[in-house]
Amino acid sequence: MKVTVCRKEHFNAAHRLFNPQWNFEKNQQVFGKCNNPNYHGHNYELIVKLTGKPDPETGYVYDMKALSHLIREHVTARMDHKNLNLDVREFEHLNPTAENIAIVIWNILRAEIDEQLALKVTLYETERNYVEYPAD
Amino acid sequence: MKVTVCRKEHFNAAHRLFNPQWNFEKNQQVFGKCNNPNYHGHNYELIVKLTGKPDPETGYVYDMKALSHLIREHVTARMDHKNLNLDVREFEHLNPTAENIAIVIWNILRAEIDEQLALKVTLYETERNYVEYPAD
Amino acid sequence: MKVTVCRKEHFNAAHRLFNPQWNFEKNQQVFGKCNNPNYHGHNYELIVKLTGKPDPETGYVYDMKALSHLIREHVTARMDHKNLNLDVREFEHLNPTAENIAIVIWNILRAEIDEQLALKVTLYETERNYVEYPAD
Amino acid sequence: MKVTVCRKEHFNAAHRLFNPQWNFEKNQQVFGKCNNPNYHGHNYELIVKLTGKPDPETGYVYDMKALSHLIREHVTARMDHKNLNLDVREFEHLNPTAENIAIVIWNILRAEIDEQLALKVTLYETERNYVEYPAD
Amino acid sequence: MKVTVCRKEHFNAAHRLFNPQWNFEKNQQVFGKCNNPNYHGHNYELIVKLTGKPDPETGYVYDMKALSHLIREHVTARMDHKNLNLDVREFEHLNPTAENIAIVIWNILRAEIDEQLALKVTLYETERNYVEYPAD
Amino acid sequence: MKVTVCRKEHFNAAHRLFNPQWNFEKNQQVFGKCNNPNYHGHNYELIVKLTGKPDPETGYVYDMKALSHLIREHVTARMDHKNLNLDVREFEHLNPTAENIAIVIWNILRAEIDEQLALKVTLYETERNYVEYPAD
Repeated sequence: MKVTVCRKEHFNAAHRLFNPQWNFEKNQQVFGKCNNPNYHGHNYELIVKLTGKPDPETGYVYDMKALSHLIREHVTARMDHKNLNLDVREFEHLNPTAENIAIVIWNILRAEIDEQLALKVTLYETERNYVEYPAD
Repeated sequence: MKVTVCRKEHFNAAHRLFNPQWNFEKNQQVFGKCNNPNYHGHNYELIVKLTGKPDPETGYVYDMKALSHLIREHVTARMDHKNLNLDVREFEHLNPTAENIAIVIWNILRAEIDEQLALKVTLYETERNYVEYPAD
Repeated sequence: MKVTVCRKEHFNAAHRLFNPQWNFEKNQQVFGKCNNPNYHGHNYELIVKLTGKPDPETGYVYDMKALSHLIREHVTARMDHKNLNLDVREFEHLNPTAENIAIVIWNILRAEIDEQLALKVTLYETERNYVEYPAD
Repeated sequence: MKVTVCRKEHFNAAHRLFNPQWNFEKNQQVFGKCNNPNYHGHNYELIVKLTGKPDPETGYVYDMKALSHLIREHVTARMDHKNLNLDVREFEHLNPTAENIAIVIWNILRAEIDEQLALKVTLYETERNYVEYPAD
Repeated sequence: MKVTVCRKEHFNAAHRLFNPQWNFEKNQQVFGKCNNPNYHGHNYELIVKLTGKPDPETGYVYDMKALSHLIREHVTARMDHKNLNLDVREFEHLNPTAENIAIVIWNILRAEIDEQLALKVTLYETERNYVEYPAD
Repeated sequence: MKVTVCRKEHFNAAHRLFNPQWNFEKNQQVFGKCNNPNYHGHNYELIVKLTGKPDPETGYVYDMKALSHLIREHVTARMDHKNLNLDVREFEHLNPTAENIAIVIWNILRAEIDEQLALKVTLYETERNYVEYPAD
């Protein structure tokens, strides 16, 4: 049977939620205070989950130190202490909701991890709001 | 692929576990100190999870503010600072175990949420005891 | 210099806040939903702090296992899975606010612990409401 | 003896750390990635602590619901989902470090709370960085 | 539909990660500081999850007190305050990675729990590293 | 008025509590399972607190990044993934209780930090046991 290994990392970023094809009133109605033109921000907690069989020689599904380095190199280095709307290419034309941030991170990491391993990400925007991608 | 969005809310309530068809000794044997006739209580932490496709215009599976309001209107307003056995209709003839509270909350919320969205609830009775409904 | 050692325990209890010398309306105005006549409840987290010099032979200010047993014997056994208003003698004529519960617990423990050791208690009623006694 | 009552609230905000009297290189050297010109952000957790004697009629040092409303009206409403540098008057000429945010919040609340009650604030910028004002 | 009930327990243990068929350099290269010959240690948090239908007479899938006792008798009593490599038989020839500890615990508990109930374990080695077995 | 800035770091270590001047039975009686000759271990959480006046040019009492590096260089690098009894010089003749570990860490850091700044350390051995040094 397979084991899932999970690694938690964090990054702090600013963002603004809005749809550029709508006027300010429509954006305000849909996104409320998340539409503040001067941005607001969050401490994002990111959990990356890999599922596979433990290697019989190491007992590891994936080396957690290596997973931490991979996340830091490909995700955290690009998003930590950044403005997601202005500083991260993937959100130039994509609204940085928690859902979309999780999908972007999954796509970045999927390209770096052996296809034999299933990949899921959980992203906490606050202690009380979080998303999982892909859904079970 | 689909995304799961999760919202955490809380409520504080009193309850007593017992089966009215059993005598006190049998209830004491099965439920122990949870059978205290004068009730005891908990800080319940409730996580509501909805699974679906993000709306391409908003990037939302479901607006978290709207989900919070929905939970507060239909669940929290009826259970917070209440005695589950005496004040909440659904437990008039149903033992308010964590399992049953989760099922009751799921039934309440299922009626309020578009059937396109899958619904799950997780309920923490204490930091060390919690339930998930429906099971994966 | 002295060291403070801290031990965290928990208990789950029901309570109701009200002043028996006031009518229901006055109680409702002051205590709001905490005045529910059928009670509500909490998972209380209790931190007991003792300050003194480490014993040179053990390196302990106080044995944490012994402190845990002391709290369980004198506090938890009397308050866990109880109704504070109905089941705990000290609240027969005292409103079980977090402030008063902390004072009662401090008085109980003060009688059991060597006077050479300073004693403080912190009591969490919820994750967002807590009290410290005595104040610094 | 006196009791300290503590209430935790939160707000999410964007900010940038820099000294406008320094050039970009000096700011980068001192503030590093916190100097990102496009801002970054945090989930701030704020704990407000009041110390006084419990009122004998209520058992309260201060009504926690009232304290929560006071913080929300005077602090959260002004800082939540804002850019501290651009949207909050007090930081027009003051660097919004955790230290300075705590001092600003203390000054705001001190004006609203009876002088008989001692006031302290603790501000978490991340789970691993926080400040207390005034110091013990 | 079925409900999953979850119980969290903890144990504190020392361990060392290494493969006895490799020399020290190879072990150091693969396991890094986890290969310290004098051991290091962790506070392990263990979550045991059982899935089944609530009993109509009790409202329980499984009595949480009984589940806690079962875990303490069969897992905690054997691993708490132990050296996993030296004191726990199952790791005499098995590297005590989080993955392998979870599998060992699952095998121990599977033998004690009715086959009608599905069993999963989650094991936190640190706040930031954890594993789930079996994977979904 | 002064501000206290706090930085949290962690390390994972093995240890054994015993007094070499006592026989095994006496050690077992006093230290119980903490006296396991093969060691056990913990995830230690360390909070370092510095009190002083914010620098008017930076708004910092102390740069948190610098404080993190200082702790990692002088404390974590020496204690993380180590056996405190065997690998850390200061415990060669000192029992590594939480109290003594906190005092050792304070002495290490006191030598590295400007005397103008007051220094305190809090050390969590488990979520439920922690110590503060020096006491208030």
